[in-house]
Amino acid sequence: MNTAEWIAVNWGMSNLRVWVFGAGNTEIAQLSSDQGVEKLVPDAFEPTLLALVDPYLGVGTVSVICCGMVGAQEGWAEAAFAQAPCAPPDASTALAVKAKDPRLDVRILPGVMQKSPGDVMRGEETQIAGFLAQNPKFFGTLCLPGTHTKWVQISAGEIVSFRTFMTGELFSLLGTQSVLRHSVDSDSWSDAAFQDAVEDAMGSPQQVASRLFGIRADGLVNGLGQGEARARLLGYLVGMELAGARGYWLGQDLALIGAPDLVKLYGDPLAQQGTPSRAFGGDEMVLAGLKTAYETLNQDP
Amino acid sequence: MNTAEWIAVNWGMSNLRVWVFGAGNTEIAQLSSDQGVEKLVPDAFEPTLLALVDPYLGVGTVSVICCGMVGAQEGWAEAAFAQAPCAPPDASTALAVKAKDPRLDVRILPGVMQKSPGDVMRGEETQIAGFLAQNPKFFGTLCLPGTHTKWVQISAGEIVSFRTFMTGELFSLLGTQSVLRHSVDSDSWSDAAFQDAVEDAMGSPQQVASRLFGIRADGLVNGLGQGEARARLLGYLVGMELAGARGYWLGQDLALIGAPDLVKLYGDPLAQQGTPSRAFGGDEMVLAGLKTAYETLNQDP
Repeated sequence: MNTAEWIAVNWGMSNLRVWVFGAGNTEIAQLSSDQGVEKLVPDAFEPTLLALVDPYLGVGTVSVICCGMVGAQEGWAEAAFAQAPCAPPDASTALAVKAKDPRLDVRILPGVMQKSPGDVMRGEETQIAGFLAQNPKFFGTLCLPGTHTKWVQISAGEIVSFRTFMTGELFSLLGTQSVLRHSVDSDSWSDAAFQDAVEDAMGSPQQVASRLFGIRADGLVNGLGQGEARARLLGYLVGMELAGARGYWLGQDLALIGAPDLVKLYGDPLAQQGTPSRAFGGDEMVLAGLKTAYETLNQDP
Repeated sequence: MNTAEWIAVNWGMSNLRVWVFGAGNTEIAQLSSDQGVEKLVPDAFEPTLLALVDPYLGVGTVSVICCGMVGAQEGWAEAAFAQAPCAPPDASTALAVKAKDPRLDVRILPGVMQKSPGDVMRGEETQIAGFLAQNPKFFGTLCLPGTHTKWVQISAGEIVSFRTFMTGELFSLLGTQSVLRHSVDSDSWSDAAFQDAVEDAMGSPQQVASRLFGIRADGLVNGLGQGEARARLLGYLVGMELAGARGYWLGQDLALIGAPDLVKLYGDPLAQQGTPSRAFGGDEMVLAGLKTAYETLNQDP
């Protein structure tokens, strides 16, 4: 009854997400762990996965379709990049990984790279595959906010070009490791301060390194509150990114893929700029992409 | 013979620098320690200083003139800011700190703050005082590169306005804590890559968060070397700052104050932009400022 037919795995730097499917593509279980790629040596991947899925394994072989940093140099095994422009990689180009446990047939989907300007993605290409499976005629831009936000130009089912912005990582570093950490040490928030900071940085991106120090200074000399400080920090960084990504969104059909809270941070200011967007869940899209890959695999003889 | 008449102290976040002067303003000793403000609770300042200077104390009282973060909230005692526009604070507004040891007459020079846009400095105002003691008719801009680089507009012996850029701290965080740390993990360097990156970021500051990720990506897909990567990282950040500080340097008489290696990173690209500058040593200027403060103190009845 509860035996897996195939297993979908999104294995990123900091987290592992697993979906187990039984007969008739019925979801049996959703599992997760904090055993991300950054915490594991190559030999640790198989036991880490088995610890989660063993209860669902039967006697036969189970397909395990993986995406994300699990396919990077520092992952389980290195799955060579596809090169843009290209369709998001499907199972036909996935790397087959030899597992010690004969019940596991593991495939890792490749990431996508771009030579000029140099760029890479691992994981987002599978979200894009899921999105395109559901929206095959989409022509426009996908934005996938995160630690390393991706802006992706899509045409005729292909990733035409893309750019990565380090916005999420900058926010995390500045908020926890820099002189600003005491200024933003709370969960409070100000929508108005965020909006103002986004507009400021979109108009004057060259001032961002100065505006950032201004958050600390305004705390000392003008009594700036923690919620406003935190919103300004993120607002300056998102605003600088939106200015840099303008060619990707201005006048484009735009879809945002990610968790609702995160997507809103991009969708709201873009709407203010007259660019509407539609939002799609990040987990839903990655799962749809892994499902598509599994189906492709089964079509192969 | 080796008895101190007065002591100059530059006490910053990460380091402590001390100069001991005897009769006739002769320098007896230069001392330093890594016991910066960030490592000390308020009660630890006096013993930390005494551990360095005790051998030079006689039976009488010795003036100790301090500047830097030692006067911040988290320092030995909080010396209230002077507010710009203002002359750099001298000893007449210094905070007298009650030491337990009666041989120490400790004064902490105030920092300078600005209400709008909010900004603060602690330590640089004493370098500025030293510079102005030697260049009393200077009319133009001072740039003091560092963790938090200051651009300061000077007129009629006053700090008219100033802006701080977090360039140095961003370089340190990104080079040691971010996804880029593996790309720049060496001391090698490329002048050409630095110059190209400065120009790129001056022209397109809104692209910086994307260019930064490009350093990592070009390492993966285009074989970018460590020296070029490190130079590009700093070049993008300095270029964004030079674009943001343009109003401070364009067409201005410009003096750079700091260590020669650091000053060169600003002076070279500015010369390329047609803005010449003169360089002054950071230690020399802070010591000159502390000397000026000591002399002011002794002029008071």
